[in-house]
Amino acid sequence: MAKKENSEEIYNKARQVISGGVSRNTVFRMPYPNYANSASGCYITDIDGTVRTDFANNMAALIHGHSFPPIVDAVIEQLKKGTAYTLASEIEVAFATHLIERVPSFERIRFMNSGTEAVMAMIKASRAFTGRPKIAKAEGAYHGTYDFAEVSQMADPSNWGKEDQPSSVPLAHGTPPCVAKDVVIYPYNNIERTLNILDKHAEDIACVIVDPVPHRVGLVPGNHDFIEALYAWTRKNEALLVFDEVVTFRVNYGGAQENYSVKPDLTSLGKIIGGGFPVGAVAGRADVMQVFDPHEKNLLLPYSGTFSANPITMTAGYQAMKYFDSEAVQQLNSLADIAVKQIREAIKLAGVPFSVTGAGSMFRIHLRPDPPTTYREAYQDKEGKKLVNELLDYMYYKENTLMINTFSCMLSTVMTQKEIDQLTEGLFRAFKALKPKIEKLNND
Amino acid sequence: MAKKENSEEIYNKARQVISGGVSRNTVFRMPYPNYANSASGCYITDIDGTVRTDFANNMAALIHGHSFPPIVDAVIEQLKKGTAYTLASEIEVAFATHLIERVPSFERIRFMNSGTEAVMAMIKASRAFTGRPKIAKAEGAYHGTYDFAEVSQMADPSNWGKEDQPSSVPLAHGTPPCVAKDVVIYPYNNIERTLNILDKHAEDIACVIVDPVPHRVGLVPGNHDFIEALYAWTRKNEALLVFDEVVTFRVNYGGAQENYSVKPDLTSLGKIIGGGFPVGAVAGRADVMQVFDPHEKNLLLPYSGTFSANPITMTAGYQAMKYFDSEAVQQLNSLADIAVKQIREAIKLAGVPFSVTGAGSMFRIHLRPDPPTTYREAYQDKEGKKLVNELLDYMYYKENTLMINTFSCMLSTVMTQKEIDQLTEGLFRAFKALKPKIEKLNND
Repeated sequence: MAKKENSEEIYNKARQVISGGVSRNTVFRMPYPNYANSASGCYITDIDGTVRTDFANNMAALIHGHSFPPIVDAVIEQLKKGTAYTLASEIEVAFATHLIERVPSFERIRFMNSGTEAVMAMIKASRAFTGRPKIAKAEGAYHGTYDFAEVSQMADPSNWGKEDQPSSVPLAHGTPPCVAKDVVIYPYNNIERTLNILDKHAEDIACVIVDPVPHRVGLVPGNHDFIEALYAWTRKNEALLVFDEVVTFRVNYGGAQENYSVKPDLTSLGKIIGGGFPVGAVAGRADVMQVFDPHEKNLLLPYSGTFSANPITMTAGYQAMKYFDSEAVQQLNSLADIAVKQIREAIKLAGVPFSVTGAGSMFRIHLRPDPPTTYREAYQDKEGKKLVNELLDYMYYKENTLMINTFSCMLSTVMTQKEIDQLTEGLFRAFKALKPKIEKLNND
Repeated sequence: MAKKENSEEIYNKARQVISGGVSRNTVFRMPYPNYANSASGCYITDIDGTVRTDFANNMAALIHGHSFPPIVDAVIEQLKKGTAYTLASEIEVAFATHLIERVPSFERIRFMNSGTEAVMAMIKASRAFTGRPKIAKAEGAYHGTYDFAEVSQMADPSNWGKEDQPSSVPLAHGTPPCVAKDVVIYPYNNIERTLNILDKHAEDIACVIVDPVPHRVGLVPGNHDFIEALYAWTRKNEALLVFDEVVTFRVNYGGAQENYSVKPDLTSLGKIIGGGFPVGAVAGRADVMQVFDPHEKNLLLPYSGTFSANPITMTAGYQAMKYFDSEAVQQLNSLADIAVKQIREAIKLAGVPFSVTGAGSMFRIHLRPDPPTTYREAYQDKEGKKLVNELLDYMYYKENTLMINTFSCMLSTVMTQKEIDQLTEGLFRAFKALKPKIEKLNND
């Protein structure tokens, strides 16, 4: 029998057929990524035999960890009956009903195949409903790979412009110049500056997009006043307030939006609502969602998708969300509270100038003593990024702990105090081991 | 025990939670769609107890029909090991290697979650590589829901402009005006007019997109001379020639592109390569695909995707494509040849002025005696569409035969002469039954 290849050997082959060797840059790792063999609960084993505790959960997509038995069982049942039809599926209606009942702002829903598709559909629906071309988004916020949605996602000091007038910086090389012109960039959580900017484009803005806890802006929740000010502005100017809850839907039983007194007009979903399978969705006001309705004589937004609402994703997603009930949400959030408290203690004990932000079952560690409140504060320069990578590598190789590449964790319901202790102790050792470099960074 | 609901009852509930009652307009049907219970091979049973022969195969996505045992078995194995990780997967490399070996123009590949994402990524890669903003696409061609890709997809006589200068007609209401400005529309298969149009934008065109057998243009293959002229034009003007083979990859072992002497620079894939699970891919020249490579110091096109290349889709897709080997392709195409021949006989016998177009295992029936050669010829006005719907309804309700809503069929490898005879005889009866209306349409 031939010797089984190791991750390095497979990756060398991968680079000959896949650009960069991976389809997702989020699994890219220097010198090579490890290849998964199998995963169960919160543990993932690679083909080289290492078992790691998984705090990444496929970029926050697996709320019950891996191979959750109710999902596996239900999917196997559906699998035998087919995975996709040119007919409708009952399970789509059941799952839609569950989600509509779960969140007050959801009156109608439509499913897609990814968060990228969900945000794109949400933007297109906002334009179709208002007849306006522009969108407003927060500097630094990630909303998938639709080019309008990714403007200023990676803005840096060389191009981000003044704080009271952030530039619209296209992400991909070759993005048509007109794309950035139709995207208005606002500074997150800064009411005065944001309203001033929005006012300049008041008649052209179809929607203001808000991620209520934007991961790449610093994983800081939107202030109540800020969200309410955006809501008031959109009412006054006949624009829509739309939430990107692809990542944040886990924060409460009814999503992060449950924390605010105002309701978004539309919400995009993804990640955990697919139960581990490709998914996206847009939900919101019935009159806005009507732009999708093929009963309309003048259909404003023709929309289809070969795999949208396929019964496998609907089955897995429905199981995942049924088991993520109010009690499970509370339990998981309490575990995250404990984790954050412990990590803050580890920071203190190790004597490193770090801080922690987050909400619900998500948290992120920052290389600064005060939690950042804006994208520009959360922004890491080259040296900062290098140090984060060293910390992540320490956790990955020495502590067998898989975190998200922004130095973040997204917990799953199958985790217990044991894994939290393991994480905290690992972080403590990482902080101590890299303390000289951390101090050097802060003194430079 | 409660009485099981029928499709009409479920749909009434669906309309209360899903806009239009369905997430995909392709499964929409008046007065209501039927809900699938289970499907196996080329038969699909709805919850009302009707068994239909499935010539739609989830909009051409299921090359082996439903519940293909090698796919079901392999997916169950993978399912127990997890559905998605923040690590790499061996099966992605194996499947990528298979596809690269299958098609000469594929040097590198990357996977996405849908055909829409694949076309969007292909367009973004073309812009990133060339640094140019515009794309050229055929009038009437469907390339998914990315707004640049859907310009003029449903152009009609009221807005399509002159034949030698087709207008760029945005699809969705509220599409930013700048989108249509960056999309150049060419008339399919017309060399002289197309080159004249392209010449006017020569310095701005990143890529010319071609579906080699565009379904909505009339399912007519691109002429050799036409494709070669586009290739020559792109070489001369430093643009890329990119193929959308999301639908047409089934035409030969190496895709529809195998029919031409020239190779596209990039190709987008989807549908059958997912084995019934959400999928998309972009493959092509290594130097162009390098825009995705995170090893590059100056990464031109940052790209990720939570569910891209997930091991379930990779497993199902690899099984589907391994079993769709050269012999299977040949057999299926021969069956389609027989079907087309029989349908032409049925048309003749019934005495209706219809024609059939197609390629490989796909064919489409047109309500005109000569096969259309352009989108404008294939275009159906309101009366024509109404008649097509009546023919489709006849097939669906009276003959228990599910076709694609353009009056098309996409065969699967599990079909036999029995199903082809059933289809042909059903069509013959439909032609006869609706002959008075058909004659009226042609005399009006």
